[in-house]
Amino acid sequence: MTDTEREFREVAGLAREAAAELAPLSRAAKDTALIAIAEALVKNTEAIVEANAEDVTRAREAGQPEAMIDRLTLTPQRIESIADAVREIAELPDPVGEVVRGSSLPNGLELRQVRVPLGVIGIIYEGRPNVTVDAAALCLKSGNAALLRGSSSAYSSNTCLVGVMGKALAQVWEDTHVPADAIQLVPGTGRESAQQLMRARDFVDVLIPRGGASLIQTVVRESTVPVIETGEGNCHVYVDAAADVDKAVAITVNSKAQRVSVCNAAETLLVHSAVAQRFLPRVLRELRDLGVTLHGDDRVHAIDDTVVPATEADWATEYLSMDLAVRVVDSLDEAVNHIRQYSTSHTEAIVTDSQSAARRFVSLVDSAAVMVNASTRFTDGGQFGFGAEIGISNQKLHARGPMGLPEMTSTKYVVTGDGHVRD
Amino acid sequence: MTDTEREFREVAGLAREAAAELAPLSRAAKDTALIAIAEALVKNTEAIVEANAEDVTRAREAGQPEAMIDRLTLTPQRIESIADAVREIAELPDPVGEVVRGSSLPNGLELRQVRVPLGVIGIIYEGRPNVTVDAAALCLKSGNAALLRGSSSAYSSNTCLVGVMGKALAQVWEDTHVPADAIQLVPGTGRESAQQLMRARDFVDVLIPRGGASLIQTVVRESTVPVIETGEGNCHVYVDAAADVDKAVAITVNSKAQRVSVCNAAETLLVHSAVAQRFLPRVLRELRDLGVTLHGDDRVHAIDDTVVPATEADWATEYLSMDLAVRVVDSLDEAVNHIRQYSTSHTEAIVTDSQSAARRFVSLVDSAAVMVNASTRFTDGGQFGFGAEIGISNQKLHARGPMGLPEMTSTKYVVTGDGHVRD
Repeated sequence: MTDTEREFREVAGLAREAAAELAPLSRAAKDTALIAIAEALVKNTEAIVEANAEDVTRAREAGQPEAMIDRLTLTPQRIESIADAVREIAELPDPVGEVVRGSSLPNGLELRQVRVPLGVIGIIYEGRPNVTVDAAALCLKSGNAALLRGSSSAYSSNTCLVGVMGKALAQVWEDTHVPADAIQLVPGTGRESAQQLMRARDFVDVLIPRGGASLIQTVVRESTVPVIETGEGNCHVYVDAAADVDKAVAITVNSKAQRVSVCNAAETLLVHSAVAQRFLPRVLRELRDLGVTLHGDDRVHAIDDTVVPATEADWATEYLSMDLAVRVVDSLDEAVNHIRQYSTSHTEAIVTDSQSAARRFVSLVDSAAVMVNASTRFTDGGQFGFGAEIGISNQKLHARGPMGLPEMTSTKYVVTGDGHVRD
Repeated sequence: MTDTEREFREVAGLAREAAAELAPLSRAAKDTALIAIAEALVKNTEAIVEANAEDVTRAREAGQPEAMIDRLTLTPQRIESIADAVREIAELPDPVGEVVRGSSLPNGLELRQVRVPLGVIGIIYEGRPNVTVDAAALCLKSGNAALLRGSSSAYSSNTCLVGVMGKALAQVWEDTHVPADAIQLVPGTGRESAQQLMRARDFVDVLIPRGGASLIQTVVRESTVPVIETGEGNCHVYVDAAADVDKAVAITVNSKAQRVSVCNAAETLLVHSAVAQRFLPRVLRELRDLGVTLHGDDRVHAIDDTVVPATEADWATEYLSMDLAVRVVDSLDEAVNHIRQYSTSHTEAIVTDSQSAARRFVSLVDSAAVMVNASTRFTDGGQFGFGAEIGISNQKLHARGPMGLPEMTSTKYVVTGDGHVRD
């Protein structure tokens, strides 16, 4: 066993034990612990900013781009808003204990399916140190121990934040019995420590990667722990023959340009040929005015010869930038086939006034979210009213789409009888 | 690409396409297809029995034990009951389309979370050829294409059964539009073909192993497709200090001996010391009369010196035989700790008349099913009123405990607006 392995197993073992202690605790206990964490973060602002400064200095010395340094930096104001987010999580309902299904069986047995925590949730993430607190708070609220593996670039910040949270938990332990070990940082910054986490089937119940496509693909490929795949969004807006053009323009512009670096931003616009002449000139002008580079197929080019010719790669790319691929199709089914071929099954939108077109699109498009006459940007736990989200699942097992607190739980069947035996 | 790989990809590709066609179909279409399958199975009894005879002959020549040959054998009567099971599946409600959650958001968007099929379900299983039909029917009913990899010992039977089902689907296609390709057998009997299935992330949405512990562990270890782990059950009965001794005897005997080869049979009995003198002599006598070999710790031995001394291995073993490990504990918490250490988290039972003991046991024991004053043998989709089950999940993600038709689905968010964009 290497030192890294030994250190990892020690920390993961503590998380495992903490999970067992945490699981049966009441909502009140968990909320008290969360409030204590929020207060401790604010109270320890100075120490947190100091630790963060080490990361920022290292990033500057390594010549990281300014945008990355900005994402990394913690200020007193940002720490205040991180603490506020924890307070908001405390206010959300506790999913644990919810009876999902229940019945009396013919033989008189009482069957209840009850939400329980998953156990230990591993989270591998990049960049922003606020994720450290956010993920830990969501895990704690849902009764799970958190085993966090942040970016090496934020290691000093993350170490300090986890330390502050652990001390806060220890201070209210007598009231709450929430174990201080419930929030753990995977020790070390090397690749080996991430691999430990991905192989820790005995310690970790689920692994959630949060970050870019390459991080997520690495985790999916290398992890033997069950993974919930999040994030990649090659999202489409389809403007149907029966679309209201005003709504179509507004939805397309909002889906593309309201915020471009996020997974629910649109990357490809598909336009029915029957509406292309009326719709495309307007939407392309608006998008161009906002600074969007347009990549069109031949038929788009025939309407607007200033578009960049689209290649196969454009259809397949999640730009996350001020770029949009545009294609004219001759039917809803052609749009659906395009989506089937290129989509990452995150979010697709149809703009139409036709009931039958909407129904067919919803039924044939196999994505986590399908929007009818609404922007793709609405696929979001906050927008859906979940109060918070740990990520947006791109997969079909366990959770699909925005994952709130209930998606961070499993269930247990509780069956109550009075000496019942099976015939 | 090897021949096996090419053949596999062809078949898996057909399943993938069939899944897309199957997903939007109505319950009526799927039920008509299922009835057609049931009728075709009965009508083709002779051909099925003939194909099965090849497998049986091969098994006899290989000197397989009589019990295994019995499990393999199909008779006209067994085929009739396989067909009846398909008809029963047709009568179950369709999980697809069920609205799991729904609300109107503050901005007027209408949010619905709707059940949709998973897509392609891979099933790796052993022995009995009835699983071929049962799994295919459950997949079809839940709108999923089935990619089946049965035991090589049943390959002739399985090929014939899948052929009969495919032809039945083709014959009613004009009425149902259920694609004949929705039920596929992985070609070949070698290890390589199973590995193809376990690596087919592009084609298969989930893989469900059905069979013994070694099969399941192999699939969990080697599969890059998400797996739902099923089956292993090292189940415990804990007889509390406050137990009614009559009920405790009945529940223990039923949990152990009603049927021993199944995952929900009890393998270890934990007895509170306060009740041991009253309870153990009675239950051990009854169990011994039924032919159960008892493996006891020192304190059990002190009460009944005919028990075999229990070793560490006894606590960890899923006997699946007429054996029971027995241990005396001094508290409920000691029982819980024993269970935490050795259980496979399938089913544990407490026998007690104490509300607080029951509550504490239910809250601390982290298993798919926790029985209060009822036999462990009740953990079963049929007993739970699910109508059918594809297996009993031992894991926490996606589905836990008996998996019925709803557990064979995912969900999709459908969001309907009227030109809604995000601020």
